Amino acid sequence: MSTFGRIFKVTTYGESHCKSVGCIVDGVPPNMPLTELDLQPQLTRRRPGQSKLTTPRNEKDKVEIQSGTEFGKTLGTPIAMIVKNEDQRPHDYSDMDNYPRPSHADFTYMEKYQTKASSGGGRSSARETIGRVAASGIAEKLLSKFSNMEIVAFTSQVGDVSMNKNPLDPTFQKILQTITREKVDACGPIRCPDPKLAGEMVKVIEKYRGDHDSIGGVVTCVIRNVPTGLGEPCFDKLEAVLAHAMLSIPASKGFEIGSGFQGVNLPGSKHNDPFYLDEETGKLRTKTNNSGGIQGGISNGENIYFSVPFKSAATISQEQETATYDGENGVLAAKGRHDPCVVPRAIPIVEAMAALVMADALLIQKSREFSSKVFA
Amino acid sequence: MSTFGRIFKVTTYGESHCKSVGCIVDGVPPNMPLTELDLQPQLTRRRPGQSKLTTPRNEKDKVEIQSGTEFGKTLGTPIAMIVKNEDQRPHDYSDMDNYPRPSHADFTYMEKYQTKASSGGGRSSARETIGRVAASGIAEKLLSKFSNMEIVAFTSQVGDVSMNKNPLDPTFQKILQTITREKVDACGPIRCPDPKLAGEMVKVIEKYRGDHDSIGGVVTCVIRNVPTGLGEPCFDKLEAVLAHAMLSIPASKGFEIGSGFQGVNLPGSKHNDPFYLDEETGKLRTKTNNSGGIQGGISNGENIYFSVPFKSAATISQEQETATYDGENGVLAAKGRHDPCVVPRAIPIVEAMAALVMADALLIQKSREFSSKVFA
Amino acid sequence: MSTFGRIFKVTTYGESHCKSVGCIVDGVPPNMPLTELDLQPQLTRRRPGQSKLTTPRNEKDKVEIQSGTEFGKTLGTPIAMIVKNEDQRPHDYSDMDNYPRPSHADFTYMEKYQTKASSGGGRSSARETIGRVAASGIAEKLLSKFSNMEIVAFTSQVGDVSMNKNPLDPTFQKILQTITREKVDACGPIRCPDPKLAGEMVKVIEKYRGDHDSIGGVVTCVIRNVPTGLGEPCFDKLEAVLAHAMLSIPASKGFEIGSGFQGVNLPGSKHNDPFYLDEETGKLRTKTNNSGGIQGGISNGENIYFSVPFKSAATISQEQETATYDGENGVLAAKGRHDPCVVPRAIPIVEAMAALVMADALLIQKSREFSSKVFA
Amino acid sequence: MSTFGRIFKVTTYGESHCKSVGCIVDGVPPNMPLTELDLQPQLTRRRPGQSKLTTPRNEKDKVEIQSGTEFGKTLGTPIAMIVKNEDQRPHDYSDMDNYPRPSHADFTYMEKYQTKASSGGGRSSARETIGRVAASGIAEKLLSKFSNMEIVAFTSQVGDVSMNKNPLDPTFQKILQTITREKVDACGPIRCPDPKLAGEMVKVIEKYRGDHDSIGGVVTCVIRNVPTGLGEPCFDKLEAVLAHAMLSIPASKGFEIGSGFQGVNLPGSKHNDPFYLDEETGKLRTKTNNSGGIQGGISNGENIYFSVPFKSAATISQEQETATYDGENGVLAAKGRHDPCVVPRAIPIVEAMAALVMADALLIQKSREFSSKVFA
Repeated sequence: MSTFGRIFKVTTYGESHCKSVGCIVDGVPPNMPLTELDLQPQLTRRRPGQSKLTTPRNEKDKVEIQSGTEFGKTLGTPIAMIVKNEDQRPHDYSDMDNYPRPSHADFTYMEKYQTKASSGGGRSSARETIGRVAASGIAEKLLSKFSNMEIVAFTSQVGDVSMNKNPLDPTFQKILQTITREKVDACGPIRCPDPKLAGEMVKVIEKYRGDHDSIGGVVTCVIRNVPTGLGEPCFDKLEAVLAHAMLSIPASKGFEIGSGFQGVNLPGSKHNDPFYLDEETGKLRTKTNNSGGIQGGISNGENIYFSVPFKSAATISQEQETATYDGENGVLAAKGRHDPCVVPRAIPIVEAMAALVMADALLIQKSREFSSKVFA
Repeated sequence: MSTFGRIFKVTTYGESHCKSVGCIVDGVPPNMPLTELDLQPQLTRRRPGQSKLTTPRNEKDKVEIQSGTEFGKTLGTPIAMIVKNEDQRPHDYSDMDNYPRPSHADFTYMEKYQTKASSGGGRSSARETIGRVAASGIAEKLLSKFSNMEIVAFTSQVGDVSMNKNPLDPTFQKILQTITREKVDACGPIRCPDPKLAGEMVKVIEKYRGDHDSIGGVVTCVIRNVPTGLGEPCFDKLEAVLAHAMLSIPASKGFEIGSGFQGVNLPGSKHNDPFYLDEETGKLRTKTNNSGGIQGGISNGENIYFSVPFKSAATISQEQETATYDGENGVLAAKGRHDPCVVPRAIPIVEAMAALVMADALLIQKSREFSSKVFA
Repeated sequence: MSTFGRIFKVTTYGESHCKSVGCIVDGVPPNMPLTELDLQPQLTRRRPGQSKLTTPRNEKDKVEIQSGTEFGKTLGTPIAMIVKNEDQRPHDYSDMDNYPRPSHADFTYMEKYQTKASSGGGRSSARETIGRVAASGIAEKLLSKFSNMEIVAFTSQVGDVSMNKNPLDPTFQKILQTITREKVDACGPIRCPDPKLAGEMVKVIEKYRGDHDSIGGVVTCVIRNVPTGLGEPCFDKLEAVLAHAMLSIPASKGFEIGSGFQGVNLPGSKHNDPFYLDEETGKLRTKTNNSGGIQGGISNGENIYFSVPFKSAATISQEQETATYDGENGVLAAKGRHDPCVVPRAIPIVEAMAALVMADALLIQKSREFSSKVFA
Repeated sequence: MSTFGRIFKVTTYGESHCKSVGCIVDGVPPNMPLTELDLQPQLTRRRPGQSKLTTPRNEKDKVEIQSGTEFGKTLGTPIAMIVKNEDQRPHDYSDMDNYPRPSHADFTYMEKYQTKASSGGGRSSARETIGRVAASGIAEKLLSKFSNMEIVAFTSQVGDVSMNKNPLDPTFQKILQTITREKVDACGPIRCPDPKLAGEMVKVIEKYRGDHDSIGGVVTCVIRNVPTGLGEPCFDKLEAVLAHAMLSIPASKGFEIGSGFQGVNLPGSKHNDPFYLDEETGKLRTKTNNSGGIQGGISNGENIYFSVPFKSAATISQEQETATYDGENGVLAAKGRHDPCVVPRAIPIVEAMAALVMADALLIQKSREFSSKVFA
């Protein structure tokens, strides 16, 4: 379905060739300062063609708030946002049209909806994510105002070039502690904060682009300044909703939080995060953070961090032996130039979905906390 | 929250020391044959202490259907199920009680609910999963009757002993195609279908048990005979809901579908799954299955397979340097014997959550399909 | 479906001849004192056969809390509650079984579920409401602790014997202001607080009982000490959710709030509720209360009051000319003695549903209010 | 909240002075023919100022589909619809601005959201209903194609001029059987199908307009050609969701289905609807229809009919003694001309909400029906 969240609730619409894409965000607290200026930066970071163009294209993917604010403040009513599509004509794909593109959603959309949209995979298009990113600007404003929460994602792997993501590694923990969006973007369009690896990643991508091929990678994301107590066991554990959010992003193939897959090698005696008293705040904290900031589905106040693998882009101009919808064997080669690696552009989308999850978790927890005063 | 699903809807209750645990399943189609005999087998597979005991303990974790069936058939009304707790007294943990157990949910439950249940982490206890497993028996019956759907999970890794899970490896694909629960259980309590690796895994676990320590591992799960068209873009893509389901299981730290994390190395030319016509069925199928049976969030009819890492159990009897709730440093050592590896017991829980996801996806898609006749 | 509410969420189960009926209540704030003693009184008021029996039947409809409390306090986890059914055998209705009872749910359940439960109308049985009443005890405790909220329903009409319910009538407003459950029950089993009318109502019921017939009536309910700001426009206006709740009660045929149906005669100049300053509290209040305590879907702090009509009971032992399931004409006469008027027993159910609505509205509003501090 | 429905799901946005109002409709079955021409008629019927203007204002409240259709057919993806607001500037109400308008939502919105939108009551404005009416065009197309379902509402009372709505009255039943939107509109702007009463109603309204006052009335609605089996007990009984829908309409004060409030006088022997075999269709039908087409919360195939009272419009230009937000006593008189009776314009809104309820109930039931084939 196209709605995400329970109290902070986002509903998106739109596909590639319709009039516009956008969303309605319900449940936004009132009196929060908000204008399009809060929303545009991440939309701009999400835009395609950023790295190849030197001219600013600020006029593109421009979001317009339709409702729910007045004089630059939220009213508490639903906020609708719209981004116009430039290319609104249903395409004529001619020959290619007979082929469901391998590893695309053309075939499955046909099976599910019994109709072939000119955009092929309908809502599986990356353009659909604009509504999510627009909505996330509201969520981030709320989280930032509430607890100075910060959400930063970066490229941690392309092909087989990977940062060391061992949770017990102090360099990795330092990065999680200090990385900012500014630093990420300063690394160039690859968005990997390690300059040496960034260079290697660019070479990997260029190689596959030269081969009319594509390659995948991994996005790692950290959420800092998280209040304790967020997340709703048993089914809506905070990491479960984050996983849901991340796997809803086109081309993502997985999710791991904290020590993740590689942590299964660690015995309990090393994996457990022991407690200590933070003298400054008077609160308990953990010495290590293999848990990734969540225990039993509830935030413990440490940094939340997780990684999301993205497969190589399915659209390649190399020839592929495949079959038409009718089952005839043939060769398909996509026309035009295509993005050889979706990872750098996925970064604001990962941040967006993380923000939506955290905003909703915060509001739900707020509905509970009042009781501590009532029943004290 | 404690409800999962939209049409096939499961609500669970219960923690370690209350009177009973169980669930209500709403949205079950009527006229389906169903008795406790359909539900007990997976509950029995989930039970603790299976491998160490030679005496059958069939009397334990016995489920009782309370409502929603008559003369062995479902009525279409909610089905409530109850499993009594044997140990219903709130515990007196005495000394240990002052320590939030490292990497347990004691601390976060206290932060969230401002109360310390005698069970410590409240619903984070594995006992909570009984309601899920009971509910899954209904889902599996439905899926089996509808399309002969089969869901089989197995241990694919313990510590650093791992099966080869490369999706392009024919042996791995063969296992996915042929594995059954009978074969899994025939491998002994470790539930790894590779006899050689199974032996090594047992040794790993025994080593850590000897050290009063624990170790993690990975569960891999396959779903066969899946109809095309299941899954609800954009937010409720089938893999997104599966990820949500898996990360809601205690101690799980991740999820990957199809090629997953290791697939990011594969260029599009190798990762894409080309189509061919299956002469027998007259339907398109894919030559490879890196997608893991889902494209664009919708099932494509191939096997769905995914893996879930589980961390090492947090409760160990080794001494741990940590702090009390009040922030005093000290040493905690859990008393008694504890499960050194949760992976084998997680298997029916992974299967259960997969079944709940698939049943709900099936019913939602059914609400759409009628239209193809109406608008033909 | 069998779930009601968004944050304070009740899921019920059970029909007449299954093992038990009950519910799971999710989203209950932690640390609230709660035992079965809080829940039993309303269940006892709901019980059938109260007025004819002099012996106490306290052993009946006894609720057992299964989970979610410890040492008499809520944990914040789901609270499951069970009431055993005494008559658990599927009935053999023999001859009557061929007839769908007129104005019962036998026919529609058969059409919907394609199965004939031995209880006929399955969940349409009044026994289903036990779960609602059990859950309401939790909601009422919360509301009472939070703002001293009080919910009192009473019989305002039986057949054509009716209290004056004109909202501009001072006597009526006085009743709304001062009525208590104790006063309602002191009026005898008819539960009408006007002694003269109560006597007439009893006579009406006795007349119809003598004729082997039945009669309907109206329940009026008032909610006092309501905080301002509850209710979620635009679809979940407070009166809309109350209407939903009331029409979900078996045999109810309508809902009106404040001036309701008779208020349409009043011109705006008389119907509008002008404001004045309450010197004591420093808050605005309204001079009249035709709105019934809600404006624009949001509580304004005045008493919320509404009325719900209940039709005459469908099961009568008088002969009725009707048809069998197979369409054969015939005569049906229900055996045994039947309740000639459901109105008095509906009172705790109306109160229960009102409490569930208010508790959920309160928790949702709490998720919003924190922002006023953040954005001050 | 601003979302209605579970499978056929409508989310609306917008208030009086923002850029646009509209909605997103999710869960629409694919392949259904749909263009703006299907949606505009009801939006045009909803528009203000219709009766006083002789010039057509077709250019106003023009809906634009943004997504979810291609070549005039639905894709199965969300359909977003937008209607631009003409007056987009936040108003300057000057003096009036200090007064919360009596029986408006100004005060309660302030209490709930702690902010004063220039539109006063924010989403309580009638303009919010545009999104509902736009969405209903999709629902009606679906219902019409599926079972030729028809939904027709009409003015049945203004002030104390009322049609005879006794369900046992054959004239009333005849109207329910034969009324169409064309007939309703042919009665003139008052939309009462009884010409004599229509004239009297107009006089009542003119009298109150002359007095700078307003008056209320009742809308009655019938739904014909309803399949059996729709509605989801126990909480989402069909009449409960209809009541929810109707009470969510601004200015509505109640709901009654079938015999409603006046039916409580009828003994069971007269109120019960006996069955007979309809030789033509081979299905059971009922001789009378006091139930209003629903029994036990499930449609029985008879006409569904219900009535909704609307209070007199709150905005009147007569002087009212009231208080400012600050509690100072004063006199408020609304400027300009105001609608003295909202009833005629409420008609397409009542039809819209009925259509949304029925479409959702239909799709949910379809998710269940497949099982009858599976388990036959």
